[in-house]
Amino acid sequence: MVTGKLDSERRARVVIVGGGFGGIAAAKRLSKTDVDVVLIDRRNYHLFQPLLYQVATAALDPSDIAAPIRSIFRKQKNLRSILGEVESVDLEGKRLMVKGDPLRYDYLVLAAGATHSYFGKDEWAKHAPGLKTLDDATEIRRRFLLAFEAAEVECDPAAREALLTFVVVGGGPTGCEMAGAMAEVARSIPDDFREVDTKTARVILIQSGDRVLKSFPKESSDAAYDQLKELGVEMKLGPRVTEVCADGVVCGEEFIAANNVLWAAGVKASPLGESLGEGVELDRSGRVVVEPDLSVAGYPKVFVIGDQAAAKDAKSGEPVPGVAQGAIQGGDYVGNIIRRELEDETWVERGEFSYFDKGNLATIGRNKAVADIRGFKMKGFLAWFIWAAVHIMFLVNFRSKVSVALSWVWTYIFGCRGARLITGKSEYKVKKTHGDD
Amino acid sequence: MVTGKLDSERRARVVIVGGGFGGIAAAKRLSKTDVDVVLIDRRNYHLFQPLLYQVATAALDPSDIAAPIRSIFRKQKNLRSILGEVESVDLEGKRLMVKGDPLRYDYLVLAAGATHSYFGKDEWAKHAPGLKTLDDATEIRRRFLLAFEAAEVECDPAAREALLTFVVVGGGPTGCEMAGAMAEVARSIPDDFREVDTKTARVILIQSGDRVLKSFPKESSDAAYDQLKELGVEMKLGPRVTEVCADGVVCGEEFIAANNVLWAAGVKASPLGESLGEGVELDRSGRVVVEPDLSVAGYPKVFVIGDQAAAKDAKSGEPVPGVAQGAIQGGDYVGNIIRRELEDETWVERGEFSYFDKGNLATIGRNKAVADIRGFKMKGFLAWFIWAAVHIMFLVNFRSKVSVALSWVWTYIFGCRGARLITGKSEYKVKKTHGDD
Repeated sequence: MVTGKLDSERRARVVIVGGGFGGIAAAKRLSKTDVDVVLIDRRNYHLFQPLLYQVATAALDPSDIAAPIRSIFRKQKNLRSILGEVESVDLEGKRLMVKGDPLRYDYLVLAAGATHSYFGKDEWAKHAPGLKTLDDATEIRRRFLLAFEAAEVECDPAAREALLTFVVVGGGPTGCEMAGAMAEVARSIPDDFREVDTKTARVILIQSGDRVLKSFPKESSDAAYDQLKELGVEMKLGPRVTEVCADGVVCGEEFIAANNVLWAAGVKASPLGESLGEGVELDRSGRVVVEPDLSVAGYPKVFVIGDQAAAKDAKSGEPVPGVAQGAIQGGDYVGNIIRRELEDETWVERGEFSYFDKGNLATIGRNKAVADIRGFKMKGFLAWFIWAAVHIMFLVNFRSKVSVALSWVWTYIFGCRGARLITGKSEYKVKKTHGDD
Repeated sequence: MVTGKLDSERRARVVIVGGGFGGIAAAKRLSKTDVDVVLIDRRNYHLFQPLLYQVATAALDPSDIAAPIRSIFRKQKNLRSILGEVESVDLEGKRLMVKGDPLRYDYLVLAAGATHSYFGKDEWAKHAPGLKTLDDATEIRRRFLLAFEAAEVECDPAAREALLTFVVVGGGPTGCEMAGAMAEVARSIPDDFREVDTKTARVILIQSGDRVLKSFPKESSDAAYDQLKELGVEMKLGPRVTEVCADGVVCGEEFIAANNVLWAAGVKASPLGESLGEGVELDRSGRVVVEPDLSVAGYPKVFVIGDQAAAKDAKSGEPVPGVAQGAIQGGDYVGNIIRRELEDETWVERGEFSYFDKGNLATIGRNKAVADIRGFKMKGFLAWFIWAAVHIMFLVNFRSKVSVALSWVWTYIFGCRGARLITGKSEYKVKKTHGDD
């Protein structure tokens, strides 16, 4: 399948699975090395996942936060990009299977990421979509916008209330960002509707722990809580969600009638880890437990990075968090190891991976955000401004930067969102409607 | 269903079916009239259809050419927008059915548009999608971009050639624009691929008549032909397509192996016309044959406009063409009639609808276009520039204008397209691949 000219030259081949932050970073480190790099992804684009919730809430367009992988590597001639899904890895045979075809590797970097986890209740998925892919985002956008459309023609007050109740399960950064953005949208479009007062929409954030953003310092959690409250988000801290169905969720003792539930509670690693065989240890979330150099025990030329890896910081012994900077640093580290081992035969010392925490940012709404940068905590406009600047800075290509900046300035000034399109099926269920006349 | 406060006031109600150019124009004419306007569309957005091919060829984003109907009418408080599909019209009972619920009207404006026609061969649809909706456009974009991905890993030369052969059936404006844009894209991305030379991609335009753009003067057709040829588009004028299957098309005596076929050959009016009953005359394309005042014979308060109507220009007796300006002028005309009849009881003279042809424009590629403006014919850069200016001018909301202008400037300078995303399923069939190693 992926043979061709390259194979006859008998150069070493590095296969990277996944074009997320980790895979892209690893591949870039190999740009000047005499090696064949093959990057495989199920999608033809790199996704800037931290802004995915903005597509789901109609502030940005899909192409604002996604860049074709081929464009990113246009000039890196030693890299070939393959659109395809890796089915399994054969560690002994040093090859992986892509659509039934074997693909040989000398070095392997697994960076296949994570997906939502419903903690064994996979039947909840259809009622409570999660937010990991562009298709997830447009689907959530579709459901979110359709709810207002359906409410506009719904005459039964209870049914209308359920349509205008949005439940977000999970109070991590994605959950907080989604809840904040949904509340903002609902408050910004009352003039679009005649029958429904969109300001009466309820956004409920459920978090089983005692605070939101538990990966942040307590102070930031409290600030996020206050800012969400200011936007009108109702927060339920403590009880767990025990049931999700088409009509709503059960949270502790309470049933909340809601037609829209968003899942932001749990993630599990790509199932690809399971195909590595019994000798390879996985943690409870399916992540591969890696050595201090991010390699798989017994297979020094196989690395796992990003959300797919259960890695520890060499200095603190703390787990490396599943965020973009963890994946990028892992990709850089692994890419450098491979480059040196291929370029310099005398070089042997790999050292251990240490994670440098540049800080954490979460945004809640316009002028509302929290930041924790190396112990320095900020909130409100300053945190929001830093958040916006950092995210624009990190967007992969320049065109996206201009477009995103423009969209944000527009939304900031006029408070309205440009991408409020319902694509795909535009059917909605209305439980009970009155006849006309 | 659409009752509520408005009904009790017993104001006259105008129902407009379709939020395209015609429906929007008619609704706007009624903005200051004391009447309830109900606008029903299957989609929540107004689509700027003339630029749809740019979404299909990855130059623009869906939200660049679509505006939520609710936003357009935010300030027109006498208008209610309903997302829904009209199933049938009961002319005698003066009501229509929306999702099983009746909706009463005093005046009715049908502006439900048209869809593709496969001339009775509906089984061709799955192999040769047409371009009418945003979902069509993203589906065509998906297939188009996937073809290059599949070709990159295809080892069989014949199969690879079929993957890189793109057939456009129909040489009207949409067909010419699609063919030109596809050829441009193929020529602009060779550096993205390693195995495939995208410049070898063939774009074939099939037109059963003796010239492309047959609604234009012969001179413009010839100019378009030359410009398409310059871009490398192969044109087959004369023979008809007699078969479309998964592997290609039969055109005259010849079989063309192609994995991607686009249908731009025929349209038929919305099936809603059929529900009007036997007393209402339809033409061969399912369009409602209307009176000189665009009303339905025998039902002076029911109008049909735009692509759904078979209307004639009062002055020339020529059919009104199925283009945006025809729909807009029809909407304006009908909206004015209704407004005057509601506001001024003494006013009776409706007159006859006459169509003012502002000119025709079709674009073929960068600096390539043809224009025929009231007999004044242009081609090349000047026509292209006028085309770009006119289209930006007519885009419904300002945000789209900025965004589209920016995208075009970007594409113009750098020649690359920002929206090259494959969303939805990213599976492709590869007929035969070699194993690796």
